[in-house]
Amino acid sequence: MAKGPGLPKGTRDFGPAEMIRRNFIFNTIRSVFRLYGYQPIETPAMENLSTLLGKYGEEGDRLLFKILNSGDFASGISPEIILNTGPGELSSMISEKGLRYDLTVPFARYVVQHRNDISFPFKRYQIQPVWRADKPQKGRYREFYQCDVDVIGDNSLFNEYELVKIIDDVFSRLSVRTDIRLNNRKLLNGIAEVIGEKARIGDITVAIDKLDKAGIENVNRELAQKGLSGAAISSLQPILFLEGSADDKFSKLEKILERSEDGMKGLSEMRILFEYLDNDTLASSCKFDLTLARGLDYYTGAIIEARALDMEIGSICGGGRYDDLTGIFGLEGVSGVGISFGADRIYDVMNRLDLFPGESEQGTRVLFLNFGEAEEKYSISLLNNLRKAGISSEFFPSPRKIKKQMAYANNRGIPWVIIAGADEIKAGKLTLKNMKSGDQTLINKDELIDLLKENNQTL
Amino acid sequence: MAKGPGLPKGTRDFGPAEMIRRNFIFNTIRSVFRLYGYQPIETPAMENLSTLLGKYGEEGDRLLFKILNSGDFASGISPEIILNTGPGELSSMISEKGLRYDLTVPFARYVVQHRNDISFPFKRYQIQPVWRADKPQKGRYREFYQCDVDVIGDNSLFNEYELVKIIDDVFSRLSVRTDIRLNNRKLLNGIAEVIGEKARIGDITVAIDKLDKAGIENVNRELAQKGLSGAAISSLQPILFLEGSADDKFSKLEKILERSEDGMKGLSEMRILFEYLDNDTLASSCKFDLTLARGLDYYTGAIIEARALDMEIGSICGGGRYDDLTGIFGLEGVSGVGISFGADRIYDVMNRLDLFPGESEQGTRVLFLNFGEAEEKYSISLLNNLRKAGISSEFFPSPRKIKKQMAYANNRGIPWVIIAGADEIKAGKLTLKNMKSGDQTLINKDELIDLLKENNQTL
Repeated sequence: MAKGPGLPKGTRDFGPAEMIRRNFIFNTIRSVFRLYGYQPIETPAMENLSTLLGKYGEEGDRLLFKILNSGDFASGISPEIILNTGPGELSSMISEKGLRYDLTVPFARYVVQHRNDISFPFKRYQIQPVWRADKPQKGRYREFYQCDVDVIGDNSLFNEYELVKIIDDVFSRLSVRTDIRLNNRKLLNGIAEVIGEKARIGDITVAIDKLDKAGIENVNRELAQKGLSGAAISSLQPILFLEGSADDKFSKLEKILERSEDGMKGLSEMRILFEYLDNDTLASSCKFDLTLARGLDYYTGAIIEARALDMEIGSICGGGRYDDLTGIFGLEGVSGVGISFGADRIYDVMNRLDLFPGESEQGTRVLFLNFGEAEEKYSISLLNNLRKAGISSEFFPSPRKIKKQMAYANNRGIPWVIIAGADEIKAGKLTLKNMKSGDQTLINKDELIDLLKENNQTL
Repeated sequence: MAKGPGLPKGTRDFGPAEMIRRNFIFNTIRSVFRLYGYQPIETPAMENLSTLLGKYGEEGDRLLFKILNSGDFASGISPEIILNTGPGELSSMISEKGLRYDLTVPFARYVVQHRNDISFPFKRYQIQPVWRADKPQKGRYREFYQCDVDVIGDNSLFNEYELVKIIDDVFSRLSVRTDIRLNNRKLLNGIAEVIGEKARIGDITVAIDKLDKAGIENVNRELAQKGLSGAAISSLQPILFLEGSADDKFSKLEKILERSEDGMKGLSEMRILFEYLDNDTLASSCKFDLTLARGLDYYTGAIIEARALDMEIGSICGGGRYDDLTGIFGLEGVSGVGISFGADRIYDVMNRLDLFPGESEQGTRVLFLNFGEAEEKYSISLLNNLRKAGISSEFFPSPRKIKKQMAYANNRGIPWVIIAGADEIKAGKLTLKNMKSGDQTLINKDELIDLLKENNQTL
């Protein structure tokens, strides 16, 4: 046979075993979102390029998957244009749609488009795939799921507190031990201000964001390259490495930031947030970390990030407050805050640490062996009864060799096999085989459902 | 404000209310698939164009959404090529991936690619969106969901029977009254053979497929245009309009088709299938309909279609047996049979006929009003208790006007509102307001969870 068909690089199939595990993650996240009163929405895979372009920086624009216009897409484009136009401009002549790059920009578009039908504060969640033409590598895919939860149209720090609580709740249900770190963009702005580099806040944020991976020396080198004065870099050092409890840090920052209005506002926000967390005993699992920056431009207040304690894989959940996301679509002054769970990384963590629960409740519980036409009717009527009782069950569709049928049950991990041959039928009985222990029991056919229900837990 | 952002034509957003209804359909279909022992898989939105092209006919190729190659996609394409190349060929130079058009071809690719890991018969289901660059019109979208269930690697008619049973089970759970029609491609082949037009089976299938909408005269005209002899068309008429029960038709066909091996094979298959259905009392809801053709080329045996009885909208579920689907990817001789539920049309039917169940169990059950900082802590501790008990609940995040907070509860359809002001707090009580009746009751805070659980059903 010739080389078989394949998949585009960076994309994956999910088989039944992976689906069960992935669904466990999605269902857990979804049930917590619902418990906290968030409502689901879905947006289309394709958005107009005018919605997507310019929202993710130059790099993001390049990583968008663009969809070729239908029909005679190249008509009207002369050879001169092709020769004299760069790929970016040329693509916009033959493509007007792209695949969504994240769920945040489509959400902002959604809010603006449907603002008259929405009751604010709008608490929404959205679990859908996104696509990025990134260079595929281990753990980085071109199609992956995001699980976003946002509340838009309310300024209260209660929302930030509740999102931290959702993170804590999700990961404790998934048995993933995590470290939640919190910071505030206004504090970073204030620090930039007091070290005399207010205008370079973007560069400072980007550099600090790399502290974890690159170390302080590389960060300082980058800051110098970006043009920060030696004095500014020096005065930044003690601030980044403030020690002590959150309260200790707040007291020290109160002095450091006293001349910055933005800084003092950020400090007050963090104090309110930590008071919520203290009252909830959540503060112990949260860390106030001045070096947390998170790259995205649009954050304006609290920023939040969670990492797995028992595996190094980077952030598995993160987000923050953005004061003007819908402004890009003409709706000004609507503040929101949200976080996004990275399902693919969470999957990798749970897989590596073997945190998935047993799967005995998933999939087919019972397989009826097929002994041929004469026996078939007897099995089918029992099969129908099991299904009416809500028990997932199958009849092997063809009378293949019994060895083959048993191998199927084994490969599929089906816990019970039912043997109903001529002898059993004559006696109104059946043989129930426990595939784990190998035990076979002859039972009356009326006993079947009760027996299976009793044994549901113990298997 | 300028005209706000929009969506690509033929695509849609789904808001919270639609999501709840759509999920009801998906969850019902999914739970029936599982009950019958089918396992979930998912494939990526993007496939290589080499996987997709040529599988759906010329029309299908045109309707594929193609994805522009990343980077400098036009490099190496000279102006001469652009001027001298049609859009089809040109697009294949700048695009090597496309969005999936259905779930069947990706499934065939999946089976071939993963055949060494699969236990056959492979019973899989797949619920994902597909994309087609069709002209958007009422009820026809460019992004829509398919819900496919197939079993591959087994020839037994038991599989066809079970799929009919799944259709019956799904629609009875959804309360959608349906008409299930069955036919067999081998019978149509046999008929073409006995009227002396064996080679024109494709044209005959396509023409008959339109009988419902276009009427017999137009069908006959089309057949004549395609070159069928008058004699052949005349001898076709009585066959298409055979009357009586399935058994009556079988007896008549036995004579008509006696010289066609294919026809007799098809007849035998239909008899076996109807025997299964008879034993199950499903035959009464199924009709043997010789005029059912279903357009797709790859069917080779049974064909199945379901329509809503109470609304004209075309097929809401359909499928059939295909003997060589994986052959296109180099794996020969693997027979399969499957059906696909059209979730968007089912949604339209259920919406129009008002078949969705009450939604009281969905979404937030309880809203705590926000009276300001002093009262907040009391409410948050009650809120945490409710969530621990699994009751979806919210605290209004800001102390806005009470009228505004009540309007939010109303718009969201939240059934219970909790009022805990200074008086209630002092007495360790709270006021529970039933939003439907307007009744307010002062209760002890410890009674809250039990009261809500008791009232869960009655609301």
